[in-house]
Amino acid sequence: MKLLEQKIMAEGKVYPCDVLKVDRFLNHQIDVDFLCEIGKEFYNLYRDCGVNKILTIEASGIGVACLTAQFFHCPVLFAKKAKTSNLSDKVYEAMAHSYTHNTDHVIRVSSEYLSKEDRVLIVDDFLANGSALSALIELCKKAGATVVGCGIVIEKAYQDGGNLIRGKGIRVESLARIASMSPEDGIKFC
Amino acid sequence: MKLLEQKIMAEGKVYPCDVLKVDRFLNHQIDVDFLCEIGKEFYNLYRDCGVNKILTIEASGIGVACLTAQFFHCPVLFAKKAKTSNLSDKVYEAMAHSYTHNTDHVIRVSSEYLSKEDRVLIVDDFLANGSALSALIELCKKAGATVVGCGIVIEKAYQDGGNLIRGKGIRVESLARIASMSPEDGIKFC
Repeated sequence: MKLLEQKIMAEGKVYPCDVLKVDRFLNHQIDVDFLCEIGKEFYNLYRDCGVNKILTIEASGIGVACLTAQFFHCPVLFAKKAKTSNLSDKVYEAMAHSYTHNTDHVIRVSSEYLSKEDRVLIVDDFLANGSALSALIELCKKAGATVVGCGIVIEKAYQDGGNLIRGKGIRVESLARIASMSPEDGIKFC
Repeated sequence: MKLLEQKIMAEGKVYPCDVLKVDRFLNHQIDVDFLCEIGKEFYNLYRDCGVNKILTIEASGIGVACLTAQFFHCPVLFAKKAKTSNLSDKVYEAMAHSYTHNTDHVIRVSSEYLSKEDRVLIVDDFLANGSALSALIELCKKAGATVVGCGIVIEKAYQDGGNLIRGKGIRVESLARIASMSPEDGIKFC
């Protein structure tokens, strides 16, 4: 998606340790009008797939998931990272590792809201090593739901996650795919 | 908002310890089409106030904030609860207490995205004791931003938060105000 690549070039910043900061429009401040365009693009890619639920993970996936879901007219379900008194006891759980925060954590959804009737589009802001995405896919598997595919805003294509998930036969559409990046040489797209 | 009260009656569940579970449409599964109506209502209430930014707090505020912001055509900024490597060093901080999780935590926004030029609408899913809202207002104060008002989906009007914030001269619009609730007697609106 050309518009997204331009946005990343204009507003993203590359830091050491493989950090791409896009908190001006994606995961701290959210450029809502722009993410509506992202949502439309996901809709165009998956409109014929019978999607009836969008699954994401808190926190930064929620914005793009909601702005995408309004085109599908379907609900969003976001997996929770913390054990909260608001979540019932009947949950599906999966383990994810965050490289950003260097922590392992269990993610959960209530079994009430994910079932074998669901045709799920998984949406997230980033795909790198694929840990979060794999955990979300596992939640769907445990619920017997069908994963129609994944919609990713930015994929670090030089990392393993994309190959890993696609290798399982799951459709992954990433709107920007980064071939390489560094503070010295900037960002190159695939 | 009659539609919201009906939704709470139909899909909300009251549990002991003052817990109202609305995770079917608001803070776990998100009924996006419905929250678009909520967003329109906030827009109608604040359309003439020059709002140029919507501030909320992760995680469950993000959905309603994004779906509201698209009517204002302005960005969302969400305060973070965790110290993350994605956040720069220049931040505004405030202390909030979560009664749900019984924890104190610092919330943060990057100083890059909140300034004295901003006319801020603060949006959140719940208002009870007002701790999160007070912390968000404090972040705006530290940045020199103007708080135009607050848009709350559900206010527990029998708790102190609403009076506390309104007592400071800040406009608070809550779309559903609960006068009392209990597992035995159900929910009564103001």
